[in-house]
Amino acid sequence: MIDAYSQLTGLFRRIAIVDEAKAILGWDEATVMPDGGAADRADQLATLSGVAHDLLTAPEIGDLLDAAEAAPPADPFESRNLYLMRRAHRQATMLPRDLVEAFVRQSSTCEKKWREAKNTSEFRVLAPSFSALITLVREYAQVLGDAFDVAPYDALVDQHQPGIASADIIPVFARFETFLRDALPRAEELQRQASYAMPVGAPPFPEVAQEAICRRLAAQAGLDFHSARLDRAAHPFCGGTPGDIRITTRYDEADFCSAVMSVLHETGHALYEAGLPREYARQPVGLAAGMAVHESQSLIIEMQAARSDAYLGYIGPILAEAFNQEPTAFAMDLLAGRLRRVERSFVRVEADELTYPAHVILRFRLERAIIEGDLSARDLPAAWNDGMRDLLDVVPPDDMRGCLQDIHWYTGLFGYFPSYTLGAMTAAQLMAAARRAEPTLDDAFARGDFAPLLGWLWRNVHRYGSRFGFNDLVMLATGSKLDPTDFETHLTKRYLS
Amino acid sequence: MIDAYSQLTGLFRRIAIVDEAKAILGWDEATVMPDGGAADRADQLATLSGVAHDLLTAPEIGDLLDAAEAAPPADPFESRNLYLMRRAHRQATMLPRDLVEAFVRQSSTCEKKWREAKNTSEFRVLAPSFSALITLVREYAQVLGDAFDVAPYDALVDQHQPGIASADIIPVFARFETFLRDALPRAEELQRQASYAMPVGAPPFPEVAQEAICRRLAAQAGLDFHSARLDRAAHPFCGGTPGDIRITTRYDEADFCSAVMSVLHETGHALYEAGLPREYARQPVGLAAGMAVHESQSLIIEMQAARSDAYLGYIGPILAEAFNQEPTAFAMDLLAGRLRRVERSFVRVEADELTYPAHVILRFRLERAIIEGDLSARDLPAAWNDGMRDLLDVVPPDDMRGCLQDIHWYTGLFGYFPSYTLGAMTAAQLMAAARRAEPTLDDAFARGDFAPLLGWLWRNVHRYGSRFGFNDLVMLATGSKLDPTDFETHLTKRYLS
Repeated sequence: MIDAYSQLTGLFRRIAIVDEAKAILGWDEATVMPDGGAADRADQLATLSGVAHDLLTAPEIGDLLDAAEAAPPADPFESRNLYLMRRAHRQATMLPRDLVEAFVRQSSTCEKKWREAKNTSEFRVLAPSFSALITLVREYAQVLGDAFDVAPYDALVDQHQPGIASADIIPVFARFETFLRDALPRAEELQRQASYAMPVGAPPFPEVAQEAICRRLAAQAGLDFHSARLDRAAHPFCGGTPGDIRITTRYDEADFCSAVMSVLHETGHALYEAGLPREYARQPVGLAAGMAVHESQSLIIEMQAARSDAYLGYIGPILAEAFNQEPTAFAMDLLAGRLRRVERSFVRVEADELTYPAHVILRFRLERAIIEGDLSARDLPAAWNDGMRDLLDVVPPDDMRGCLQDIHWYTGLFGYFPSYTLGAMTAAQLMAAARRAEPTLDDAFARGDFAPLLGWLWRNVHRYGSRFGFNDLVMLATGSKLDPTDFETHLTKRYLS
Repeated sequence: MIDAYSQLTGLFRRIAIVDEAKAILGWDEATVMPDGGAADRADQLATLSGVAHDLLTAPEIGDLLDAAEAAPPADPFESRNLYLMRRAHRQATMLPRDLVEAFVRQSSTCEKKWREAKNTSEFRVLAPSFSALITLVREYAQVLGDAFDVAPYDALVDQHQPGIASADIIPVFARFETFLRDALPRAEELQRQASYAMPVGAPPFPEVAQEAICRRLAAQAGLDFHSARLDRAAHPFCGGTPGDIRITTRYDEADFCSAVMSVLHETGHALYEAGLPREYARQPVGLAAGMAVHESQSLIIEMQAARSDAYLGYIGPILAEAFNQEPTAFAMDLLAGRLRRVERSFVRVEADELTYPAHVILRFRLERAIIEGDLSARDLPAAWNDGMRDLLDVVPPDDMRGCLQDIHWYTGLFGYFPSYTLGAMTAAQLMAAARRAEPTLDDAFARGDFAPLLGWLWRNVHRYGSRFGFNDLVMLATGSKLDPTDFETHLTKRYLS
């Protein structure tokens, strides 16, 4: 007789494998699928989601969970795994089917309206659908919040990054806001004084050369192409499965920086996936710890390591050779000037490291107000513009570059945005801890070698999978809870000195 | 209240969609998957097969089938669909789980042994596993045969090509054997007299030029790249789904013929998939009618149309231009000499159009004897070599080029081989009927235009999906049952005049 916990691991393994199939189909859709396959692919993904949902909500799972909880496993990974199984089962069974169906329908309607509204920059086209979607998201958040005994907005945050709540985020973001109000004008002033706007190399930078560089740097950073691919897609992403990782980028022959840095970013995500604990593969506890932790792993590679003086000095000659240009055209200070340029932008995805958090803080404020019922769809454009004026002292000229720029909310995705900045802060805090433990990290970066950093990350983050929630993981890895100090120190060193 | 038949179409649609996901994952595995993904991919495909099997064997399907059969749909496509649903359900539920599991395990074991045995050409390494596998296949065939009230071997044939049985195949193959014994030496003699061995063009033929030609000819043959792709794989195949067809080939810079002809072959498969009845998409009746019919569609394009004088005359100048060589180097008679060369080969996949059926007739004889208990694993190598001597008067120098050459039997796949030659014969019979109905087909081929042929095929084959079994479909499309006359006439015209 197989015990209840072992039976559960078999059932959750099956669910994880269906999710792997979805991940590969999603990659295929974004990279190679002919346009004519779109409708069938949507059906395939929806059907596999339905299959996974049916597996997760099968009555036997509830019975097995009850039995396993009556005699829980002693191993802390296994006991966490059981907890995460219960959590997933509860999330899936808690929501009334009518609500889920209404949400899926309204999300699809609202997304279509958003595409229309974004093209014409007319928010009012979207307002009624968005308002209806908000009503459903609030209901959904309320049900989840009641089930897990947390505030509705926190229930949403916890879906994307378990183990953190508004009460943790609010003071951290508030402190950073204060820092930014002081730092941003000073950074801009310093930038004006320096010769920052010099071009790096001379275009065109042939795609084939860019791709070869990206592949080389990703491999050198630790990505094993025996179990990974690099392809092109309209938007860079890291997909696939831990044993078959698919990263993508896009190439612009006028600017190599975007491809190189996005590949290093996605490589950070990929290395995290590759480093997850194999003995818990396909179990909830073997998965990544959440989106903020995931983002910390991409940003520690892209922002902390790859934009360091040491690494920029290392890649300059490689770039020069690959593009067959003078090494002086890719000198470290030129690369630094280009890759660490601060600019108040209307658009989050174009923002630099220093101002990016302002975009996230704005969205965090607004989405909490929406979920808590303090902000209506109709009032969003004005609130957005007020927020941008307050935080960055710029006002978008239209909603296309304002509250319509991101797809997230208009598909019903709330509680996700904080992950970006939590990830940036965590990356800085992890890097500070890693530098304390491994004083020669920068010597390694100067040789293009990420292995010492990666070893530290594996020991302190990757190998735990979802063993810990966000706050516990950060505490364990760095010795203190999340705090913007290391991020501020990093930014001060990079932009204010 | 939705009626039982409509509920069944919903459930079978779901099964078909899971099968579509498997098809895309299978394509991915053969074309782009990094090696490291192999083990996970095997799990993904096995799990999705399990999901589809669970959906097909759910108790509610049996109840719904009973209810639907009590008041069957009047429409002939729908009533055939209901019949095919029952058939699929019966096939899936009939086999005891123990037997299926033992078969899957033994198939995997035997396949591994086969790879080992093939490399060293040592059949005896494989004999015990193969013997054990045969025992399970015979048991499996017995259960299916009992369920469908046919002989065990016929139950296997019917899985790959519904609507045909040994009683139909035996006389057709016997008659062709007689034809071949007479025709082959005469064709060889004529070939010796002609200047057949002249080279076509001068290598190398760059891959990129070959790929451009393949893409152009496939598109011109009717393949819509809005819903299709052409990629590279170790073995050419047609995969994907009717709305997202994936064909593959491989390129040899010393010889362009293999890529061009294999792409036209796969295009024939692809055009069949694309022409299946959309109103029954994702229903059993909307699927291809079987492997022999599928092969007839690839061979009517590759062998009947693309190797015709008219088409070879058309592609000569295209090849010359693409390879930047003299048009005279790609003259029709040179292409014909190369692409219609007859040679007694040991290996089926290298065989020409005339001798290929001998390879299939041998396999048909032997696999029937194996399933009927008249031939043991141990005696296979000798029986193989005797058969080759009898049919083609050649004896393979080793088992690698003899009974170990094909993977089929060693994974448990029996009853499939006849489809290749039934397809070739059907292709000739369909082409003769199409020529009667559309007398200007060859004028169109001379312009590279397959549209008149394709229109006829669509009206007489594609649009029926699985509405008819093999014998009925051939009768309806050509006015007579399958008969090797048209194939013999075709071969006589091409090789004996």
